[in-house]
Amino acid sequence: MNNSDLMQRMAFINEVEKLKLIVRQNVTIDGSRQENSAEHSWHIALMAIVLSDYSDFKNIDILRVLKMLLIHDIVEIDNGDTFLYDSQANKRKNEQETMTANRVFGLLPENTRNEFLKLWEEFEKRETPDARFAASLDGLQPLMNHLSSKGQGIIKHKLKTQQIIAKKQYIQQSSKELWEFAKNIIQQSEETGLYIKS
Amino acid sequence: MNNSDLMQRMAFINEVEKLKLIVRQNVTIDGSRQENSAEHSWHIALMAIVLSDYSDFKNIDILRVLKMLLIHDIVEIDNGDTFLYDSQANKRKNEQETMTANRVFGLLPENTRNEFLKLWEEFEKRETPDARFAASLDGLQPLMNHLSSKGQGIIKHKLKTQQIIAKKQYIQQSSKELWEFAKNIIQQSEETGLYIKS
Repeated sequence: MNNSDLMQRMAFINEVEKLKLIVRQNVTIDGSRQENSAEHSWHIALMAIVLSDYSDFKNIDILRVLKMLLIHDIVEIDNGDTFLYDSQANKRKNEQETMTANRVFGLLPENTRNEFLKLWEEFEKRETPDARFAASLDGLQPLMNHLSSKGQGIIKHKLKTQQIIAKKQYIQQSSKELWEFAKNIIQQSEETGLYIKS
Repeated sequence: MNNSDLMQRMAFINEVEKLKLIVRQNVTIDGSRQENSAEHSWHIALMAIVLSDYSDFKNIDILRVLKMLLIHDIVEIDNGDTFLYDSQANKRKNEQETMTANRVFGLLPENTRNEFLKLWEEFEKRETPDARFAASLDGLQPLMNHLSSKGQGIIKHKLKTQQIIAKKQYIQQSSKELWEFAKNIIQQSEETGLYIKS
């Protein structure tokens, strides 16, 4: 085998096996284990397909949204997932993730490396319609998971409802209907005792 | 909330949480647990993006390929993953999976339900370029996983190299280069003692 383009792509595909080992605060619906970032990425990519009509932006490019969602957590491979509500850890997060982005996307041939780096940066900035819609699904899935898994991963963090709303309200920038849905399940979760009323 | 279209889509999104609980014969690269079908689906969707230039078909539609790969294993939710080399179990597989497809895709509004059912059937038949390319990635990823995880999930099945080649050679229908790569890693795995020489 002397096709270096293909070998570079395959090195990347082998490297991202590690994302299956990065665990999140959420749990699977049977409560048996923590959810990992690879299966989370699958779930929100599927949500993008199923919910694309709910974007308030007229011209989102669903293929770009899918690419962003499938790669967005690869930057966690070296340092793990950062819990959204851990403000100290989030201060260190950007620099670490940029290093991992350069290392892991750097395994790829130049054209795909540059495409993925740009897509990841676009996702992180949440300025374009594609990035905002993608980010809204990344924000919504954990809320649905809290309720469907009966909060088995989240109760111990004693999150306040207002704290969650503050972190998630950006969803309304891309979809008023998804934000209405999100507020409704946040309230259901509060009533079930998963979050603290505030 | 009285938007029944959105409620149907969200019921589907909650239901497919179960795919994270469906385990495969392959293991994660640290050997700590069996891989599940949700993270496997993420991995091959990402492969489709990274390897799209290696399709021998000129006009594959990468968005359709991604949709196929993201939904293809949802039909396992009720009965689990069927090991490719278990011929008895594979005889029962089709009927069971059709029932699950109708049940789970049936949670969705009609337009998306019909789209997903057709995409899944197309994937299963492996007749179109999109389906053949998608299936070739579904066939390739386990081979890469066997080698990168040092066969921790596969050695016990005592698979013969010829048996694997017989099951995987359809990869060449969509990409001669990916099939060359696959044969190369099958040979490496045989040399490492993961498969039995035959």
